[in-house]
Amino acid sequence: MFNEVKSLNEECGVFGVWGAENANYLTYLGLHSLQHRGQEGAGIVTNDRKKLRIYRNLGLLTQVFSKPEYLNGLTGDSAIGHVRYSTAGENKIENVQPLLFDFTDSQIALAHNGNLTNATTLKKELEDQGHIFKSSSDSEVLVHLIRQSKVRSLHEKIIESLNKIQGGFAYLLLTKDALIVALDSHGFRPLSIGKLDNGGYVVASETCALDAVGATLVRNVQPGELITISDKGMEIDHWTTKTKLAICSMEFIYFARPDSDILGINVHSARKRMGANLAKESPAPGDIVVGVPNSSLSAASGYAEASGLPYEMGLIKNQYMGREFIQPTKELREKSVRQKLAAVKGVVRGKRVILVDDSIVRGTTCAYIVQLLKDAGATEVHLRIASPRFMHPCFYGIDIQEKSELIAAHKSIEEMNQMFGSDSLKFLSEDGLIDAIGLDADAPYSGLDMSYFNGDYPTYLYDYESKK
Amino acid sequence: MFNEVKSLNEECGVFGVWGAENANYLTYLGLHSLQHRGQEGAGIVTNDRKKLRIYRNLGLLTQVFSKPEYLNGLTGDSAIGHVRYSTAGENKIENVQPLLFDFTDSQIALAHNGNLTNATTLKKELEDQGHIFKSSSDSEVLVHLIRQSKVRSLHEKIIESLNKIQGGFAYLLLTKDALIVALDSHGFRPLSIGKLDNGGYVVASETCALDAVGATLVRNVQPGELITISDKGMEIDHWTTKTKLAICSMEFIYFARPDSDILGINVHSARKRMGANLAKESPAPGDIVVGVPNSSLSAASGYAEASGLPYEMGLIKNQYMGREFIQPTKELREKSVRQKLAAVKGVVRGKRVILVDDSIVRGTTCAYIVQLLKDAGATEVHLRIASPRFMHPCFYGIDIQEKSELIAAHKSIEEMNQMFGSDSLKFLSEDGLIDAIGLDADAPYSGLDMSYFNGDYPTYLYDYESKK
Amino acid sequence: MFNEVKSLNEECGVFGVWGAENANYLTYLGLHSLQHRGQEGAGIVTNDRKKLRIYRNLGLLTQVFSKPEYLNGLTGDSAIGHVRYSTAGENKIENVQPLLFDFTDSQIALAHNGNLTNATTLKKELEDQGHIFKSSSDSEVLVHLIRQSKVRSLHEKIIESLNKIQGGFAYLLLTKDALIVALDSHGFRPLSIGKLDNGGYVVASETCALDAVGATLVRNVQPGELITISDKGMEIDHWTTKTKLAICSMEFIYFARPDSDILGINVHSARKRMGANLAKESPAPGDIVVGVPNSSLSAASGYAEASGLPYEMGLIKNQYMGREFIQPTKELREKSVRQKLAAVKGVVRGKRVILVDDSIVRGTTCAYIVQLLKDAGATEVHLRIASPRFMHPCFYGIDIQEKSELIAAHKSIEEMNQMFGSDSLKFLSEDGLIDAIGLDADAPYSGLDMSYFNGDYPTYLYDYESKK
Amino acid sequence: MFNEVKSLNEECGVFGVWGAENANYLTYLGLHSLQHRGQEGAGIVTNDRKKLRIYRNLGLLTQVFSKPEYLNGLTGDSAIGHVRYSTAGENKIENVQPLLFDFTDSQIALAHNGNLTNATTLKKELEDQGHIFKSSSDSEVLVHLIRQSKVRSLHEKIIESLNKIQGGFAYLLLTKDALIVALDSHGFRPLSIGKLDNGGYVVASETCALDAVGATLVRNVQPGELITISDKGMEIDHWTTKTKLAICSMEFIYFARPDSDILGINVHSARKRMGANLAKESPAPGDIVVGVPNSSLSAASGYAEASGLPYEMGLIKNQYMGREFIQPTKELREKSVRQKLAAVKGVVRGKRVILVDDSIVRGTTCAYIVQLLKDAGATEVHLRIASPRFMHPCFYGIDIQEKSELIAAHKSIEEMNQMFGSDSLKFLSEDGLIDAIGLDADAPYSGLDMSYFNGDYPTYLYDYESKK
Repeated sequence: MFNEVKSLNEECGVFGVWGAENANYLTYLGLHSLQHRGQEGAGIVTNDRKKLRIYRNLGLLTQVFSKPEYLNGLTGDSAIGHVRYSTAGENKIENVQPLLFDFTDSQIALAHNGNLTNATTLKKELEDQGHIFKSSSDSEVLVHLIRQSKVRSLHEKIIESLNKIQGGFAYLLLTKDALIVALDSHGFRPLSIGKLDNGGYVVASETCALDAVGATLVRNVQPGELITISDKGMEIDHWTTKTKLAICSMEFIYFARPDSDILGINVHSARKRMGANLAKESPAPGDIVVGVPNSSLSAASGYAEASGLPYEMGLIKNQYMGREFIQPTKELREKSVRQKLAAVKGVVRGKRVILVDDSIVRGTTCAYIVQLLKDAGATEVHLRIASPRFMHPCFYGIDIQEKSELIAAHKSIEEMNQMFGSDSLKFLSEDGLIDAIGLDADAPYSGLDMSYFNGDYPTYLYDYESKK
Repeated sequence: MFNEVKSLNEECGVFGVWGAENANYLTYLGLHSLQHRGQEGAGIVTNDRKKLRIYRNLGLLTQVFSKPEYLNGLTGDSAIGHVRYSTAGENKIENVQPLLFDFTDSQIALAHNGNLTNATTLKKELEDQGHIFKSSSDSEVLVHLIRQSKVRSLHEKIIESLNKIQGGFAYLLLTKDALIVALDSHGFRPLSIGKLDNGGYVVASETCALDAVGATLVRNVQPGELITISDKGMEIDHWTTKTKLAICSMEFIYFARPDSDILGINVHSARKRMGANLAKESPAPGDIVVGVPNSSLSAASGYAEASGLPYEMGLIKNQYMGREFIQPTKELREKSVRQKLAAVKGVVRGKRVILVDDSIVRGTTCAYIVQLLKDAGATEVHLRIASPRFMHPCFYGIDIQEKSELIAAHKSIEEMNQMFGSDSLKFLSEDGLIDAIGLDADAPYSGLDMSYFNGDYPTYLYDYESKK
Repeated sequence: MFNEVKSLNEECGVFGVWGAENANYLTYLGLHSLQHRGQEGAGIVTNDRKKLRIYRNLGLLTQVFSKPEYLNGLTGDSAIGHVRYSTAGENKIENVQPLLFDFTDSQIALAHNGNLTNATTLKKELEDQGHIFKSSSDSEVLVHLIRQSKVRSLHEKIIESLNKIQGGFAYLLLTKDALIVALDSHGFRPLSIGKLDNGGYVVASETCALDAVGATLVRNVQPGELITISDKGMEIDHWTTKTKLAICSMEFIYFARPDSDILGINVHSARKRMGANLAKESPAPGDIVVGVPNSSLSAASGYAEASGLPYEMGLIKNQYMGREFIQPTKELREKSVRQKLAAVKGVVRGKRVILVDDSIVRGTTCAYIVQLLKDAGATEVHLRIASPRFMHPCFYGIDIQEKSELIAAHKSIEEMNQMFGSDSLKFLSEDGLIDAIGLDADAPYSGLDMSYFNGDYPTYLYDYESKK
Repeated sequence: MFNEVKSLNEECGVFGVWGAENANYLTYLGLHSLQHRGQEGAGIVTNDRKKLRIYRNLGLLTQVFSKPEYLNGLTGDSAIGHVRYSTAGENKIENVQPLLFDFTDSQIALAHNGNLTNATTLKKELEDQGHIFKSSSDSEVLVHLIRQSKVRSLHEKIIESLNKIQGGFAYLLLTKDALIVALDSHGFRPLSIGKLDNGGYVVASETCALDAVGATLVRNVQPGELITISDKGMEIDHWTTKTKLAICSMEFIYFARPDSDILGINVHSARKRMGANLAKESPAPGDIVVGVPNSSLSAASGYAEASGLPYEMGLIKNQYMGREFIQPTKELREKSVRQKLAAVKGVVRGKRVILVDDSIVRGTTCAYIVQLLKDAGATEVHLRIASPRFMHPCFYGIDIQEKSELIAAHKSIEEMNQMFGSDSLKFLSEDGLIDAIGLDADAPYSGLDMSYFNGDYPTYLYDYESKK
C-alpha cells in the first residue's frame, strides 16, 4: 500500500466536502488518509459562500499545514483538497493543486486525479488565441475551455468542455454555489461519495477517506457521470453516455490502501486472493513466506495461507525515515539504503524464503532485497510477484510514461531472475489477476484497465499515441 | 516494536564507535536504527583526538540533524551518540545526551541508558560540597563522582564511582583516548559490541544497530563489565564481580526491534513464542487473529499459527503521521485519533476477531481499538495480551514510575474487559513468558527482570523504595 | 529615505542586467540597495539562454534568499529582479514579481514599477475572451495584450500593447534574447541604465543600485522610450512620441535614497534645499533643529544651515527592529511603539525644538513624536514640513489611493497643529518645492507630478477617474 | 553607538525588573533598547515566586524570541535578562546568559556584564575540588563560590564571594525572593536603577532602557555597592568600601547609545564635545564635515559646529542588512561590502572632506571608507578621530584582549595615514577626551578608565598580567 521502497507513484488523491462545519478540518483529515496517493504537494480550497480561500505548498500534508493558522484561515462549510505526486523537474508550487482561479466576476477551484491525453494539443490551440497558462499541469486546460465556452450556464459549459478532453480524470470543481464531480468515460480512477451524519456530502478518491471522517458510502461515481452537490442536495447527471468501465488494475495491486473498497471490493482481500492465485499457479520449494513491507504483506499472507507455509516477518521497515543525508562515501551510501529495510536474521537464517512482492516496475530494489535476505542467512530466495509482468507505460494518471523505465519490457523472466540473484522468479497470470480482483463487469477484462500488462489501451492515446 | 500507539517509552538508546572514518555518519546510522528507543532528543559527540565536539537538540534524529553542516562539523574517528525519551516537564535541551563536560584540563562525554536509584541522595551530597549540576538528569552524577575521586587513574576513578551508584545503567564514556563501556550489575539494559570490517569497534543498545553499520557481533556486554576500547584494542575488565543477570523482560515484549537479538535470542521469534504460548493457555472462539500494528504483529502471527486460525490484517496503521493539529471540536478530535489506526472493514466484517496486543500499560487505547473493530463490523472481539498483567512501576530506565498509571494495578481482569468493551480478556502467564523468551540463565526468573508483573525487584530501590 | 515610521510606501523597485557573469548575484546586490522601495516581496528571474528560472517569495530580500541554493539555482548571464510593496489583503505570493510566463513555445518574465489606470477595463475585456489571469496585480495585463497581438515581431507586439495601457510604468521584460525596458509617456518613475566594466548593461529604478554593482550611468530612461538590450548592444526606440515629463515629486521628497541622482539631481541635496527654502519661508522661534530619522535628516540639516541654528540629534532610531510581538496590555503596546524612536533627553531638555519632517501623509505618528520630545523636556516643538500639504491620492504607483487616508485633505493646518500638540505647524510652498528640486524641464511644474498637493493630475485617470 | 562597521564589541547588556506585571515583556523591551551592547545571544529568566523559568538562544533578541510562546511561557513579576556578544569560537548556547542554576533546594539565575581577571585561577581551584562548570564563561565562577561558601545567609555568601573575584562586573542575580545587584569596586560598567509608575524597580546597563519601559532614574549604582531589591523595597549595602571610580571611557566614546546618560552625562552631548575639542586641537583644510554613520555622527556634528564648516551626509548606511551571502568571486565580495555604506556622490564630489570617526581599533575599514569617498569624487579626505590612539587591550569586558589586534599599537600616525590613503590623520588628545566627558570625580583621570590609551590599568590584572 505504501510507496516508499518502490519508485512507482500515483499522481493524486482528491477530497471534497459540502455542507459541513469545519470543512477545512474534515478535508485535512480526509487528505491525510489519502497521503499515500501523493507526497509532494498538498492544498485545500474552502468556500465560505462569499469567497474561496486557498492554502497549498510543496511537501507532505503535515509539512504544508505546519502552522495552525494555515488551516484556520480556510473558513467555510465546503472545500476541496488535493495531494499530489509530480514527475521530477516540474515539482514547483504553481502545479500544486487545488488550482484556484480568480476572475473579476467569480472564482472556481479545481482538483484533478488523472492525466489528460490531448492536453498538449488543446493548450496549443488556446495559446494561439492568446490564453496564458499559470501551471504546467494538464489539469488547467479544463478551466480555460469552460471560460471560453459560449453556451449559457456553467453546467452546460462544463459538459461542453468535458467532451473536448480525453484521457483519465476524476475532477472536483468548487464554486461559491456547488461542488461538482466528474469522472471520465472509462472510470480509470476510483471516486466515491459519502454522507456525513449531519447531512453533508463528501467525495474522495478512496473509501478509506470516507471512513476517516465518519461518512457512509452512498455512491461509487460511475464513468461519464457529472454530479452536482449543492444546498439542493446531490444531482446526478452525465456528461457522456458513451462509457465503458476500465478501472486501473494497479489501484487494486499497489496504489489503494488495503482498507479501501473499490467498486465494492476490499483491496486487502483482493490482494490476498492475488497471493493465493499466485501460490496455486507458481508454488515454490520454500520454508517460509515473507512479504516486502508494507505493500506486499496482504499478497504474502494470501500466498502463505494457500500454500500452507508459515507467513513470517522476515523483513521489517524502519518507520522513522526522514530526509536523508547525502553520505560522503559509497560504503556509507549503501549502509544508508539499508536503513529503510532490515532483514530479521533470527527468522530467515537457514531458511528457504519465498519472497512475495506485489509488482516489479523499475526493478531497482529487487536485487537489494534478495541480497539482504541472503546476507541474513537465507539459503534460497524464490521471488513471486503477485501481478503480471508490467511492460507498458500508463497515460491515465500514473507517472510511468516511458517504456524504457520498465524492466519487464526489456528483460526476459530468466534475465531478471539472474539480475536479482533470486533462485526462481514467477509472475501472476493475467487471468489470475482478473479472477482475484473479481470485478463482475460487462466490459473487456471484466472492467479493468490491463494495458500495463498487455498493451491493450482502452482509448486512442492522442498526444501520447507515438509512445505506445 | 514501535511505540506510537501505546504511551510506554524506553528512555534511551546509545551507540558508540572507535577507530573508523566518518564516525559521525556511522553514529547517525546507528542511532537511526535505535530511534524507536527514544524520540524526544538526540545528540552525537565526536573525538578527533584533539577535541570532543557535540551537537544535540530536541526532536527526532532527522529533525536534530536537519542540516548537513550539523553532522559534518562533528569530525573525528570515534564518537558516542544517544537518542532520548524524557518524562514530561523535563524535556529541555540541557538534558539531551550525550552530555559533554569541558574541564580546563580535559573533556569527557557521557551517554546513559537506564535510571539510577540513588541519584537524588548522591546529588544532594555533592551539592552540599558546592557541586553544581548542569542537567536535571540522574546521569550526570557519575561524572561528578569521577571528578571528585582521589584515586589516581581515570580507570580507577571510574571503578570507584560506579561502585557508588545503584540502579540500571548502560554507560558509554568518551575521552580523547578511549571509549569506555560499563553495564550495571544486573544487566538491566541490553548492550552489544561489534566489529567493523576495517577493525574499528561499535557499541550499541541493540544488535539491529550493528547490522545497520555492517558490524559483526563480537560480545554481548555482561553485568558488571567495564570495557575500554582504545587504539590498543578492547580490554575487558569488571567494576564489580557481584552480579546477577536480570535483564528487562519488556525489552523482549515491547521495546526492542524485532530484528535485534538480545543475549542471542531473536526478538521477533521470542514474541511469536509468546503468542503461541498465549494461544495454548487461552484459546478463544474466533474466526481470525488480528494484531495491533506494529508492535503486536509478531505475537499475533504466533497465536494464529499455534491456534490454526488465519492471521489477518484487520487493522492498519497510517504511516504518514506528523504533528497533529489541535482540533476545534470533540467530534473532530475523535476523528483525528482514528487517523492513526484504521480497521479493514472488508476483513473484519461479520467476523469474531481475536485481537492480540503485546501488553497493556495505561490501557487508554484498548477501548478505542475494540470499538474500531466493532464499528467495522466485527461481531466479537476477544482480547489476548501476550504478556502478564503489568502492575508494578519500573525504576531501572522505563518512564513508568507511578503505580497509579498502571491500569492492571487497580482493575481486575473482568473490570478491564468491561471497560474495553471486549468479549473476553486474557493475559499470558509469567511462566509462559519466561518459557517463550527462553533465556537459560542461572538466576531468578531465568535471568529476567519480571518485577513489572510480580513486584519482585532484583535490587533495593534506595530513593524510590517508598514508591514500591 | 527609509519608510518604517511613516506608513507611505513605494510600490516597487526594479533591476535588470544583461551580459554579465553571476547575473544572479549582481541582481541580488542591486535589489538590496533598492530594498527601501519595497519590503513585502522579492524575486529574481535569470536567463541562461536556454531557460528562464525564477525564485521569489514574500519578505525582505534576505528572507526570500535565506538559503544560498535559492540564489545559486538561478544561473545565467542576464536577469531581472523586483522588490515589492503591496496593499493589504493582496499580499500573496502569486503577486510577487517578477512574473514568469511559460508558454509552450517560449518564456517571458516581467517586472513592473508603477500602476496602470485602465487595467481593470482591459482585464475585463480579456476575460470576456476567455483569458485567465494568474495574479491579481495590474502588471500582468501587458503580457496578455502581447500574446493576443496579431502583429508579427515581439517588438511590434510590445509597441502595440504599450499603446493600449495607461498610467505609470517602468517595465523590464526578459526573454531568452533580450532585456527590454519601457517607460510610460510621463516618466512617473525614475529609471536609469548603467554600464559595467565588462561591457554588460544594468537597468535600475535608482542610481544607487548602479553604484552598488559598480556600474557607470549611461542614460536616464526618457518618457515614451522602448529600449532593447541584447548581445547586439543597446537599441533605443520609442513606443510613443506624445510625451510630457511629470516625474513623481515624492521620489525627491521621500522615496528615493539620498545617494541616488534622479535625472541628474542628487536627492540628498534637493532635500537640503527643501529644508533651506522652508527655513526662509517659515522661520520658527527655536533653539535647535531636529529631524525625524532617517528620512528627514537631509531637510533638517538644510533648515539648520539656512536658519543658522544648531542641527541636533534629538531623536534616534533603534536600528534593531524586527518582527514585533503583540503586547498583552495597552500600556505595553505604547511602550513598544517607543522602541522605534527615542528622544535624546540630554539634547532636548529645556530647548525649543524645531522639528523637521519631510511630509505628512496619514499623520499618525506626528502627535507621538511631538509628545516624545515634550516628555523628554522640550519646552516648545515647532513642526516644519519640508513639502506642501499632501491632499490628493496617487494612481501612478504609490499605495495611497483614497483621499480619506490623507489627513491634510480633511483638516486645516490649525486643526492638525492642535491634534499633534505642536506649538506651530508650517508646510513648504509648492513653489518652494519646485525650486528646491530644480528640474529644468519644459513641462508643467518644471516636469514634476505635483498632483499630491494640487490635484492637477497629468493624465485622465480612467478606472480611477471617480476617485479624484 | 552601533557597532556594525567597526569590529569592536561590548560584551553585554543586562536588565532586571522586580515587582511588575508582565515582567517578561518589560524585560524584552528593556533588552531591545540594549541590543547594541550584544548581538550574538539573548535570554530572559523570570520568577513567579515558585519557580524560575528560562528561555535563551543564540542570535538577536527578535530571533531568539521568534515565537510568542517563547516569551509567554516566562511567567512572573520579576525577571533578569541579558544580551551577549561573545568572542569567536565560544559562541555556543551554553554561554548565553542569564545562566540558570537548578539546585535540589533552590534556584538562582545570573546575568553578568564585564570580565573577571582571576576567573581562570579560581576555576582551577574549584575544579580541583571536583566542581564542574557548565559554561566556558568566567561569569559562572561567582555561583560556585556562593554555593561553596560556609557562611550562613545568602547575603553573606555573596559578599564573601564577591571579595574573591577581581576585574569588571555588573552582576544581576535573581532568586525566588530578591533581585540582587552588584557592581565592581571601580564601576567599570554603567548600571542604573529606575522606578516604574506602579512602584516596581528596574535595573539596566544604560538609562535608555529605563526610558524604554517608562521608568524614572532613581540611582546610578556606585562602585562596590550590593543592592537587594525585594518586596521590602530597595536595600543598599556595600560588599567593599575600597572603591575608586574608573568607568570605561569607551562607553562614552563608542558603546553607549547617544540617548543614554552615564553618571548624569548625556552620551550624545559628550560626543559632540569630543568633536568640538578635536576641531580646536586639529583643524583641517576641508569644505565639509562628514561622520561615519552611525556611531560618529555626534562627534562629526560637534566638529562641524566648532569649526564653522557645514555638516553633511556624505555617507549613508543601508539599514536593510541581513545575513550575507558568501559571494563567489572577489569582485562580488568587494561589491557586497559596499552594501553597508554608500558615499553620496552629489555631496562629496569635488569637495575636501573632513571625515570624523569616533575611534580606530583594528583599522580595517578606514582605508575602505576613504576610498569610497575618493571614488565618489572627494578631492581630499582628512581623517579626524574623536578619541586618542587605542593602543592597549581591555580586560574588564571588551573583546579586545590582544595588543596585536590594535593597529595603533604597531603603527605610527603617519604610517596609518598612508595605509588609509587619507590626506591627513589626527587623534583627539587624552586631555581633550577627559574634558569632553566632563566627569567631575576625585579619582585618576577624573574617574575614567583611560587604559586603552595610556596602558595605565586601574587594577592588577591577575590571569592577564602577562598580556599587558
